[in-house]
Amino acid sequence: MTSNNRWLLPDGIDELLPERAATVEALRRSLLDTCASWGYQYVIPPLVEFTDSLLVGLGADLDVLTCKFTDQLSGRTLGVRADITPQVARIDAHSMPHDAVTRLCYTGSTLHSTAQSVMSGRSPIQLGAECFGCADLDADLEVIELMLSLLGAAPLLLSQHRALTFDIGHIGVYQALMADAALGEDVEQAVFDALQRKSAPDLAEALSRCTADAAASIQSLADLHGGVDVLPQARELLSRSPAALAALDQVDSVVARVSKQFPGLAIYVDLAELRGFRYHTGLVFAAYLSGIGAAVAKGGRYDNVGAVFGRSRPATGFAIDVKALAAAVDGATSSGQVVLAPSAGDEALSQAIDQLRGEGHTVLRELAGNADSRCSHRLVRQNEAWVVLPLDGVES
Amino acid sequence: MTSNNRWLLPDGIDELLPERAATVEALRRSLLDTCASWGYQYVIPPLVEFTDSLLVGLGADLDVLTCKFTDQLSGRTLGVRADITPQVARIDAHSMPHDAVTRLCYTGSTLHSTAQSVMSGRSPIQLGAECFGCADLDADLEVIELMLSLLGAAPLLLSQHRALTFDIGHIGVYQALMADAALGEDVEQAVFDALQRKSAPDLAEALSRCTADAAASIQSLADLHGGVDVLPQARELLSRSPAALAALDQVDSVVARVSKQFPGLAIYVDLAELRGFRYHTGLVFAAYLSGIGAAVAKGGRYDNVGAVFGRSRPATGFAIDVKALAAAVDGATSSGQVVLAPSAGDEALSQAIDQLRGEGHTVLRELAGNADSRCSHRLVRQNEAWVVLPLDGVES
Repeated sequence: MTSNNRWLLPDGIDELLPERAATVEALRRSLLDTCASWGYQYVIPPLVEFTDSLLVGLGADLDVLTCKFTDQLSGRTLGVRADITPQVARIDAHSMPHDAVTRLCYTGSTLHSTAQSVMSGRSPIQLGAECFGCADLDADLEVIELMLSLLGAAPLLLSQHRALTFDIGHIGVYQALMADAALGEDVEQAVFDALQRKSAPDLAEALSRCTADAAASIQSLADLHGGVDVLPQARELLSRSPAALAALDQVDSVVARVSKQFPGLAIYVDLAELRGFRYHTGLVFAAYLSGIGAAVAKGGRYDNVGAVFGRSRPATGFAIDVKALAAAVDGATSSGQVVLAPSAGDEALSQAIDQLRGEGHTVLRELAGNADSRCSHRLVRQNEAWVVLPLDGVES
Repeated sequence: MTSNNRWLLPDGIDELLPERAATVEALRRSLLDTCASWGYQYVIPPLVEFTDSLLVGLGADLDVLTCKFTDQLSGRTLGVRADITPQVARIDAHSMPHDAVTRLCYTGSTLHSTAQSVMSGRSPIQLGAECFGCADLDADLEVIELMLSLLGAAPLLLSQHRALTFDIGHIGVYQALMADAALGEDVEQAVFDALQRKSAPDLAEALSRCTADAAASIQSLADLHGGVDVLPQARELLSRSPAALAALDQVDSVVARVSKQFPGLAIYVDLAELRGFRYHTGLVFAAYLSGIGAAVAKGGRYDNVGAVFGRSRPATGFAIDVKALAAAVDGATSSGQVVLAPSAGDEALSQAIDQLRGEGHTVLRELAGNADSRCSHRLVRQNEAWVVLPLDGVES
């Protein structure tokens, strides 16, 4: 590596320069403030943990996604978090002392061994909210409403031309169908993989190993996606399975509530959606913005993940991909002026600078070297007082 | 690992629960806002980089401190940042397009292979500001003033009983002395190590291998720490070295400026202070709070670190240890009420909740399960309107 390319960053790893960083910071604050006003308490989980804690029970794909190294102190394997949600579940299970409904929110950088989305690369900034201790649909409705409210703090933040789509599904529909079909373990795995990858040829291949009945209903499930009119079709198809009907009842309730609270929001039902929901057990949902390839937010119910940490708790929540969302919002604009001030001066100058900074303006002391191109104004002494004048109208 | 200890965190790695997390977040925002008002632009450097970029030219101790793993994509070694300052120097050298004086600020978690301070463990949250492109003392004075202003946003944040101490030194004094002494490389290394560790026996051992003259002046340097009256002593001792006198001139200027701007601040001069200043080339400084063992902030001039990235630039700046500082400040207190609201209700209820949240209050919808113990008030319907009443005065 020569000095010419020492600045190269690894593939999928990026730095955020001032303009993008300001947008991310403004978004971060606004999102966390809203979470707080809904009662979600901010926690800061660690950057690394033992892989035994990070990965337990969460499936092979999170394992592969996690960057690991050997801890020099303990000799054990540490992983950089690839997902913060399991960390927050651990905090709820172990560190929150009471049995009350616990609402937590968080934000931070994560690291993936390979990029999962072009927009966020291998180090997404994740911001999320999780509600523990309530198994009722009310908790799901609350986190969905919070997620959509955050994204729809839109009037302020989102460009006018981005359309938001809300995706909804339920793991219970697939599970009920599988229980009915009673496939062998390897066939079921093949079906799951094919559905997860939404691969029609692989699904056909997997179904060729099922009975005709099972193949027909699984194929129907794969086709159950589209507008809300998918739901009555699903009821008809799954009418013999009480578990599937109960799951559809929950989807119906969410659709009804969301349609009422966010009129005009596009709703997409996908009952075969399994991809990316690693540890979910019930309702699953996501939000997409037009023009952004990957989901900007994703969530669902994941009861009992905390069991491995010693406390089994109902849980539901979501995570927002902050870099993806930042790509969709207008840049943060500061209303203040950027004022150039002399490097040295009297006490009155210091007071004038303090006052301007306190009023939300940016004041740069002049230093030897080229001036910052952001400066629009200059602090100059006129008639015994320091006044702010436009830069181009002043002799320097 | 059984389910009973899956929640264990690695030694020196901690999670921040709601109270501490809220303090850190409040501090973070206040510090970054002040940096912005001084013209320091926020950037977000990446969590990991190639070790070739992270470590180049920064000495063996940063290397040992960095946790490394093999990148599955490139097969090369990546490191989790142990220090953000070199990353910001790289951003200035490579990604900032102009030759102007560039002021940048940042914050984020870092990771150390072994703990450097009890307070922050192995994963300190670092927040800092760096000024590139100005070799004048003015730039050093600016970053010192900014650092002390941030810590002395004290009236608002710091408990009354914490005394702030400002430490000041200059690498140039040591360098001038070494140039005069003309020691062999291994003797010089032994002297440096002994001074860095402030180990009197090791220093005596190292000096036994010098000439009497050199040993005497190096021993005098080791004793040159204390109040500002150390400075005239140093002038006398180093009167034959113009380089050392020039360095002392800079220390004098800083002491004069700081004494004037922060009257009452304790100033400690330490001309043998080398410990922890890995890549510094001129003035070095730190700030200590009584009762906190490690420095809460540390900085100095580090010209030309950017050279390896293709652009050699004068540079000076500092980094604050946010967890250490948070341990010294009063917890963040929210002025808003925490209000419990029914889980469902009419349109007027939704409006009442939105309004309360907009006014800075926290409103939790009631969910099945035990209520959150933070709730002090309740939203109840009285005479066709929703009103907030104290929780203990209401029948639930």
